[in-house]
Amino acid sequence: MGTLIKNGTIVNAAETIQADILVEGEQIVLIGKNLPKDKHTVIDAKGKYVMPGGIDVHTHLDLPFGGTSSSDDFETGHRAAAFGGTTMHIDFVSQPKGGMLHDGLAIWRKKAEKAQIDYSFHMMVTDLRDEVMNEIPTMVDEGITTLKVFLAYKGVFQVDDNTLYRTLLQAADHGMMVMVHAETGDVVDLLIHKYLKEGKTDPYYHALSRPPELEGEATGRAVALAGLANCPLYVVHMTCEQAVTQLRLGRAKGLPVMGETCVQYFFTTIDDLKRPNFEGAKFVCSPPIRTKHDQEILWGAIKDRTLQVVSTDHCPFWFEGGKNGRIAGKELGKGDFSKIPNGLPVIEDRLKMMWTFGVGGNRIDMNRFVEVNSTNPAKIFGMYPRKGTISVGADADIVIWDPKKKETLSAATQHMNTDYNLFEGTKIKGAPSAVFVRGKQVVDDDKWLGHVGYGKFIKRSPYSPVL
Amino acid sequence: MGTLIKNGTIVNAAETIQADILVEGEQIVLIGKNLPKDKHTVIDAKGKYVMPGGIDVHTHLDLPFGGTSSSDDFETGHRAAAFGGTTMHIDFVSQPKGGMLHDGLAIWRKKAEKAQIDYSFHMMVTDLRDEVMNEIPTMVDEGITTLKVFLAYKGVFQVDDNTLYRTLLQAADHGMMVMVHAETGDVVDLLIHKYLKEGKTDPYYHALSRPPELEGEATGRAVALAGLANCPLYVVHMTCEQAVTQLRLGRAKGLPVMGETCVQYFFTTIDDLKRPNFEGAKFVCSPPIRTKHDQEILWGAIKDRTLQVVSTDHCPFWFEGGKNGRIAGKELGKGDFSKIPNGLPVIEDRLKMMWTFGVGGNRIDMNRFVEVNSTNPAKIFGMYPRKGTISVGADADIVIWDPKKKETLSAATQHMNTDYNLFEGTKIKGAPSAVFVRGKQVVDDDKWLGHVGYGKFIKRSPYSPVL
Amino acid sequence: MGTLIKNGTIVNAAETIQADILVEGEQIVLIGKNLPKDKHTVIDAKGKYVMPGGIDVHTHLDLPFGGTSSSDDFETGHRAAAFGGTTMHIDFVSQPKGGMLHDGLAIWRKKAEKAQIDYSFHMMVTDLRDEVMNEIPTMVDEGITTLKVFLAYKGVFQVDDNTLYRTLLQAADHGMMVMVHAETGDVVDLLIHKYLKEGKTDPYYHALSRPPELEGEATGRAVALAGLANCPLYVVHMTCEQAVTQLRLGRAKGLPVMGETCVQYFFTTIDDLKRPNFEGAKFVCSPPIRTKHDQEILWGAIKDRTLQVVSTDHCPFWFEGGKNGRIAGKELGKGDFSKIPNGLPVIEDRLKMMWTFGVGGNRIDMNRFVEVNSTNPAKIFGMYPRKGTISVGADADIVIWDPKKKETLSAATQHMNTDYNLFEGTKIKGAPSAVFVRGKQVVDDDKWLGHVGYGKFIKRSPYSPVL
Amino acid sequence: MGTLIKNGTIVNAAETIQADILVEGEQIVLIGKNLPKDKHTVIDAKGKYVMPGGIDVHTHLDLPFGGTSSSDDFETGHRAAAFGGTTMHIDFVSQPKGGMLHDGLAIWRKKAEKAQIDYSFHMMVTDLRDEVMNEIPTMVDEGITTLKVFLAYKGVFQVDDNTLYRTLLQAADHGMMVMVHAETGDVVDLLIHKYLKEGKTDPYYHALSRPPELEGEATGRAVALAGLANCPLYVVHMTCEQAVTQLRLGRAKGLPVMGETCVQYFFTTIDDLKRPNFEGAKFVCSPPIRTKHDQEILWGAIKDRTLQVVSTDHCPFWFEGGKNGRIAGKELGKGDFSKIPNGLPVIEDRLKMMWTFGVGGNRIDMNRFVEVNSTNPAKIFGMYPRKGTISVGADADIVIWDPKKKETLSAATQHMNTDYNLFEGTKIKGAPSAVFVRGKQVVDDDKWLGHVGYGKFIKRSPYSPVL
Repeated sequence: MGTLIKNGTIVNAAETIQADILVEGEQIVLIGKNLPKDKHTVIDAKGKYVMPGGIDVHTHLDLPFGGTSSSDDFETGHRAAAFGGTTMHIDFVSQPKGGMLHDGLAIWRKKAEKAQIDYSFHMMVTDLRDEVMNEIPTMVDEGITTLKVFLAYKGVFQVDDNTLYRTLLQAADHGMMVMVHAETGDVVDLLIHKYLKEGKTDPYYHALSRPPELEGEATGRAVALAGLANCPLYVVHMTCEQAVTQLRLGRAKGLPVMGETCVQYFFTTIDDLKRPNFEGAKFVCSPPIRTKHDQEILWGAIKDRTLQVVSTDHCPFWFEGGKNGRIAGKELGKGDFSKIPNGLPVIEDRLKMMWTFGVGGNRIDMNRFVEVNSTNPAKIFGMYPRKGTISVGADADIVIWDPKKKETLSAATQHMNTDYNLFEGTKIKGAPSAVFVRGKQVVDDDKWLGHVGYGKFIKRSPYSPVL
Repeated sequence: MGTLIKNGTIVNAAETIQADILVEGEQIVLIGKNLPKDKHTVIDAKGKYVMPGGIDVHTHLDLPFGGTSSSDDFETGHRAAAFGGTTMHIDFVSQPKGGMLHDGLAIWRKKAEKAQIDYSFHMMVTDLRDEVMNEIPTMVDEGITTLKVFLAYKGVFQVDDNTLYRTLLQAADHGMMVMVHAETGDVVDLLIHKYLKEGKTDPYYHALSRPPELEGEATGRAVALAGLANCPLYVVHMTCEQAVTQLRLGRAKGLPVMGETCVQYFFTTIDDLKRPNFEGAKFVCSPPIRTKHDQEILWGAIKDRTLQVVSTDHCPFWFEGGKNGRIAGKELGKGDFSKIPNGLPVIEDRLKMMWTFGVGGNRIDMNRFVEVNSTNPAKIFGMYPRKGTISVGADADIVIWDPKKKETLSAATQHMNTDYNLFEGTKIKGAPSAVFVRGKQVVDDDKWLGHVGYGKFIKRSPYSPVL
Repeated sequence: MGTLIKNGTIVNAAETIQADILVEGEQIVLIGKNLPKDKHTVIDAKGKYVMPGGIDVHTHLDLPFGGTSSSDDFETGHRAAAFGGTTMHIDFVSQPKGGMLHDGLAIWRKKAEKAQIDYSFHMMVTDLRDEVMNEIPTMVDEGITTLKVFLAYKGVFQVDDNTLYRTLLQAADHGMMVMVHAETGDVVDLLIHKYLKEGKTDPYYHALSRPPELEGEATGRAVALAGLANCPLYVVHMTCEQAVTQLRLGRAKGLPVMGETCVQYFFTTIDDLKRPNFEGAKFVCSPPIRTKHDQEILWGAIKDRTLQVVSTDHCPFWFEGGKNGRIAGKELGKGDFSKIPNGLPVIEDRLKMMWTFGVGGNRIDMNRFVEVNSTNPAKIFGMYPRKGTISVGADADIVIWDPKKKETLSAATQHMNTDYNLFEGTKIKGAPSAVFVRGKQVVDDDKWLGHVGYGKFIKRSPYSPVL
Repeated sequence: MGTLIKNGTIVNAAETIQADILVEGEQIVLIGKNLPKDKHTVIDAKGKYVMPGGIDVHTHLDLPFGGTSSSDDFETGHRAAAFGGTTMHIDFVSQPKGGMLHDGLAIWRKKAEKAQIDYSFHMMVTDLRDEVMNEIPTMVDEGITTLKVFLAYKGVFQVDDNTLYRTLLQAADHGMMVMVHAETGDVVDLLIHKYLKEGKTDPYYHALSRPPELEGEATGRAVALAGLANCPLYVVHMTCEQAVTQLRLGRAKGLPVMGETCVQYFFTTIDDLKRPNFEGAKFVCSPPIRTKHDQEILWGAIKDRTLQVVSTDHCPFWFEGGKNGRIAGKELGKGDFSKIPNGLPVIEDRLKMMWTFGVGGNRIDMNRFVEVNSTNPAKIFGMYPRKGTISVGADADIVIWDPKKKETLSAATQHMNTDYNLFEGTKIKGAPSAVFVRGKQVVDDDKWLGHVGYGKFIKRSPYSPVL
């Protein structure tokens, strides 16, 4: 009485095989040749790829930011994710200033009651008083084994070297991993003020105030300190040659340091920030989007495995917020780029873009596609092999991927709760025809079968392999 | 009526899961939780790891060399390999001087009639006349998709840059990969003569005549030309910092270049060549064994994935050959290091050493152990996922690995057909308790169940992924 | 009526020539072949080298530190310097906490009233209030064109990234150069406390609390920010591979970043810190002395010009202070390495050591010896060609160097005001036989001819070439 | 009764000073402040720079090549050189095939009878029979201390690794330096034939047949072998990132390896080869001109001192040869790029271009200008300080450089014996107003004062410093 996926081609990070899959309850229980139909619901995957659901390890749903919030919550964001083939994500919990980590966790648990797909949390550490330092190990019991610290956002999230190093030590002691946003915040802050003072307020100056030299510097710093503390480090949203160079140096020394980039850094450039009519604001995120040259560096780093993961840093805002009942959005930053809410809508388009231009463009093969989008995320974040693979005993988080399906990306048709699409008009080839979360089908082509409350919090283990 | 492996922990390159495996005929047909016993032969793997059999992509069985032959043939070498957990290997066919590739192939097919485990062939190209260049593509039909060229062994195997580049182009055109022995042969030749002329004839001078600078040079050369030809390149038996640096540079540019090292380079040093009573000869291979520093570099390169494979370059010789009915061996080189047959007995000990000191020494985890010893070999050499993984549809090449089993490596107990063991006296922990080749059990602890003629030639596909 | 130096071999950074030199007043006025004796005082330099006097750009005379002071003042330190062939130095002025830069300058001018050789000042910026930031450009008028900032010594000198970057911008705007002590202070501070808490109080732990990873990190940081600010940067006392790697990366990008190392880092190792009876304290300086491997890296960096200068960081303390009328010294740190006054007596031995083991050891040639010890210091610090070269119009700061002179370095014979010599017992070959400062002879073999008050403050220009 | 150069600013590699210079006979005999006029001829250099004459260490005058000869001989080439401020050059002697080195030397001595400025020779070793290997040391007695070998020009000049290495050893044994043309000749040869076979015969394909990967490869090879042989190596005409990377790696290891680039590689790009009407042929040289990106890499390598010298590889041909009494020229290669004589007219424009765009463009300062164009050439090639510096005892090879002089480069006005100028129409600012060779004025603005037979062969010493 399970679900039998027949005739498909299973694509894992490590292999491509022809076999049938039997799902019973929430798990994959059997993989075999020509499995008998018995009384199972049969899904015919002929001509399609059967892959583990995408895992997006870097998202910000319903995140308060700069006087408004990101426009996708756990309901809308989850639907959009699933339509794009993503069956799980990890969101960042903010520790409230003056509060404890558990205070933030309680808030995020509340937000997540609307979950439609599976999720987990990273803990953003922003106020490391002694009692909070002592609280860190308790996160492991909650199934939260990753701490995020910021070297940027001065006066808000930014930590100093003392805090960074103590966090690394504390994490290492408890089998946790530290994630770092690597930009030199003090200098970013000075540059922002400089440009604003000079009357340079357009979105383009957002990028100039966050030059790649600072991302390289902060990456080098985090790599060095993590190496010294012998703590696994994961550098989020890497964008440029300077940062890749520093990470590669660290890895060549054998340090346990890893890195991700995000979809948008492959496909947009600093020139997009110059689009007229404030449209540049649609592309404002941090670190900023870079150059063609950096795009090539990133593909090279995916190829030689300096980078292990592609995520989204999904954090959508309305371009024209504050009207039609919408919360405020990008317009907050008109006349002052520093007030543009930072973040982009990407969660729905990650796999489609990476498939069309990554696999289709001969940058990566199918297995590496699965690896950077699902398997490595599951491994690095301690959920493997429950998540991130089509194998017996794994959660039946499955995407049936139709390599012939064509779409044109557009705000008009997307499920993300915002009024623009970053890749508007881009033609993609390859998209999900069916998506399962723990055995339950949530997407059937363009039909939504999921429901609020189905998504589960996934406790993660303290194990952090280096890939 | 198959074989059911129950209660084990399946360890693949990509995952560690608890599941049962059903083998029917030669293949794995089912992986599932708590599979029913039915009428199957049941193997209880409780407390053990169930891994894909080791694949040794670099061996020389029954190889004529310097007036004698390597002392293991396809019968003895296969038994030794299997006792060590290796279920398949790829041997190098020598093109006879003046002959065609097929001439060499015919000779090797004959040798391989005694096969007890599976095998394939690489084609060593040593005489690239035009007709031979034209013959290369026919190798693909034979299932041989890899060509080996030598930048060393002047006057014997060594090719010049013209031949190297044309081989790369020809290979790229037909989906083949080129393997390269990277040492600058002209200079090695000069150094050998220099030392001999100076009366420096001991085994130690073998290493001095093949300095790491030359391995680095030749590696850089091969990487550059492969990049230009856009041909997949695989650098065999890499040993030192200079070579790793050049390979890493190429990979960082996104070139399709890969590399292996061999077990011995992790565990022996140039000082072993100084052992008295000509015992240094036991360690003579090319490139030579290096320094502690290079060992660390190699571990780092395995860690950051600059290197993808660990093989053996197994090519054993008797230490005291030419008596007791033995063919000649290392003694040929007494008084002239250049006459010492090059090669070491390693095929049996690869997995045990890598497990004990690699996994046990926290250099790599179990999954990476499987990856470098079995999965990557299968992928890079076009046999995946038929070989190199425990998955449905794969050949049932399975090792039941007992992590508690202790042994002391010794010539007295080994199965390799030679009178010494490279790691004599080394205590290992972790060894096979059962080994299956295509569904047939060949090893049951210390009992041999295989038989001559069982091993099959595996045709390989022209596909060469870059890892 | 001048001084005529005849028959010598002039050794400049750029050349070695046979010519006579006429000094009139304070300057070299004529260089020529066979100059006529006229009524000049003639110095016969036959068989000797005539070189520009050494310039030590990194010294701390009479520096209050940790409850005592460095034991050489401008009188004793100058005499010692000159006996070693150094005719000028640049000392660091401390800005008093809460005070202005000029307050510090006044104090140092007072100290320098005893000057016997020429000197200049760098300004150590330790408290960058807005009014102090505004005061910086006035230093240029004082002839002080270099600012020193510390990334270490938390709570004392350490500046944060904001201050570092603003200082770089301010310096760049006024043609000044920034010098940086590159160690990650926050982490050093944590490590010091960790070791002390563990009862590890011996001098050796001084080094463990300042690992090379932190020097590399801070160097990378300074290089990145200087590059962004387009400000000339000079990294003081570089000691290790990690730091050299980061500087080399920056220079390969064409950034205006330079570096020095100090004599002691070539000739002592971390093992010296383990000497019994607290003798390790004699070697305590920051960054700490490192390993043999790092020594090789430093020689390589001198060779490929990644490093431009060799200085001393001269900052002597008594080993057995606090008795015999001595001020307190190294003994302050018995039982607590963090209380050992940081610094070493080196100013007298720099040239002798570099000549004997650098030139004599075939590490550098004579011209490079002059370049790193005199010419580059003069250029980089804006005094060239007044200082640092034997040329017409230059100050007659001249060392007559006897390459045959042999000495044994020892506290018993040295002129530095302390009770130990870092290189005690080392035999050197090559030393000054005569030394002139602005035309006046101050050293005649072992006779002192100088006098207090002769030394002049040298105003430096804002020009800072990158070498 | 000498020549007194008054009121000028002396610019040496190492310094800029205000002083007068007295020349008597062929040498500089006095440098001093306000030298008395006595009976000397006085040259007023007020407002001008007095610099050592340019030394062009890489030229091919009257070189037989591909059925014609380079169009400048020792008479015309010398005049052109001197008008551009170059007072000495080193030309390459070709060993005749089958002949001895001395045979080539005799031919070149004959050619050089027309010399108007000073010159020396490098010996191009193209046929290294044993007797020739034995002849090498005799070159030192001739004052020729540099050997040139080619890794390209298969079948003509190209040497194999055996010859390369033996040459390095032989050179090292006799204090000689090896110069290498680094391109992988075997592969260049294959690519040339490939393009021609495809009917791709335009000048542009010259560049495609000599890709930068091959220059990088051959550079890496030469660096590795020179390092092993411990022989000073000088890589000529470096053009690209790949080559610079390999040289930098070698230098960072402390190897005695150096490199030059040529003027044209800073100022022309591969696009110039696409000029219509066969005009691309005007830019054909080997290695070919590259990209904007490579230009930046070269400036960076000049800045961080990975490269030490800027030369020209001057080897002019007529664009429209074979008529008007001209010998054949570039037109030989119409319809077959491989027949285009390789080489460019540059000797006259080197200093003007480097001054205008190097110094004027803030890429280098005046001292570095002198260093790369004169001082380093003199040092590296064993003529220092006789040549390459304004100092007492040096040859009076002096350029009075007028920084205000403006010209427009043009074939119409140049002195090089060819019908086109590589930089036609380029406006330069800064040029010689007077030029002296060994005390004799040869250029007075646009007037030629030199005469055939004045130029002398300069014996060079075996000393080869690494810069």
